[in-house]
Amino acid sequence: MTINYPNGSQHQVTKKESAARGMLFEHELNDSNKYYLIQDRAVIYKKPTPIQIVKVEYPKRAKAKIVEAYYQAPSTTDYNGIYKGRYIDYEAKQNNAASFNYELISKHQVDHLNKVDKHGGIAFVIIYFKKIDKVYLIDIKYFSKFYYDAYNGGKKKSLKASEIVDAYHGHEAKIGYAPRINYLDAVDEMYFKK
Amino acid sequence: MTINYPNGSQHQVTKKESAARGMLFEHELNDSNKYYLIQDRAVIYKKPTPIQIVKVEYPKRAKAKIVEAYYQAPSTTDYNGIYKGRYIDYEAKQNNAASFNYELISKHQVDHLNKVDKHGGIAFVIIYFKKIDKVYLIDIKYFSKFYYDAYNGGKKKSLKASEIVDAYHGHEAKIGYAPRINYLDAVDEMYFKK
Repeated sequence: MTINYPNGSQHQVTKKESAARGMLFEHELNDSNKYYLIQDRAVIYKKPTPIQIVKVEYPKRAKAKIVEAYYQAPSTTDYNGIYKGRYIDYEAKQNNAASFNYELISKHQVDHLNKVDKHGGIAFVIIYFKKIDKVYLIDIKYFSKFYYDAYNGGKKKSLKASEIVDAYHGHEAKIGYAPRINYLDAVDEMYFKK
Repeated sequence: MTINYPNGSQHQVTKKESAARGMLFEHELNDSNKYYLIQDRAVIYKKPTPIQIVKVEYPKRAKAKIVEAYYQAPSTTDYNGIYKGRYIDYEAKQNNAASFNYELISKHQVDHLNKVDKHGGIAFVIIYFKKIDKVYLIDIKYFSKFYYDAYNGGKKKSLKASEIVDAYHGHEAKIGYAPRINYLDAVDEMYFKK
């Protein structure tokens, strides 16, 4: 991927920078959740990344130091909490292209979100499309239909940002100042509209 | 603390073993939640322990290896999820004595549980008293009253297992085979009884 700067220079984006942008979306979601918490609108947190700890040292007069550990695949999703008395659970992904490859979300995460939906919770995926600078929410019921098709060998392996609103009943979350990503307004439209 | 074995021998319990028993209660709660998940009764998970990662190495042809990291204080509680359509959130503690020192739960965890309660969720602490081999649930409203008194310098610094039912409106969770700790029956009594 290439970024065109206003001064005309170009910059090849490395994998590392791509990961950093993924972190950026996560960071802005965390900030938005902090804002919601301070406003007392919702209580939603990101779950810590699961780490498999292999070796810990206990230096004298110092706190325990983990010296060998590995990242683990999460059992569930990134975020959960409570909003307007209801359980809310979602997976957040960022994407550099204007289409989203289903493989970026693991099957057990989609299965988990379906369980949440079945138990009466609010469950969705939230995707940031870097290229068009837009954030969309898709309820897990609509996302699943396409996801499982792809998983079971269907031809369609990705979703395009342009088809989210019509084919996936997606809702856009406005990007602003405070909160940075006002996704709870989209949640209101999707789950609390009479 | 001393454990008396059936063969008459005694065994001094070290701090390490004490931590291992804490792990055991956590392990049995995790097993119980797996059981509830398989039975499709609830979707409740333990959150991963937050780890502050300082240094990661990327060996060739091998997965990323974390070589310096530290345990962090959790921002919220150990467990959350959805039960009977409602958000559920709790902190689990094990205790070797027949009384429970309030200091074992941090103020921001009690604050968090109060927020959950205020937003319409189910929020409680679940305590295993090793000495009497019993598990009790206390709704956060009843727990808080005593907790904040102690926090603000009150004389009473601990709760006794014997006063949980009367003074704290506590409910016992039966210890059995499957699930090991059937705490959702206690939750039914506490939050779903008409």
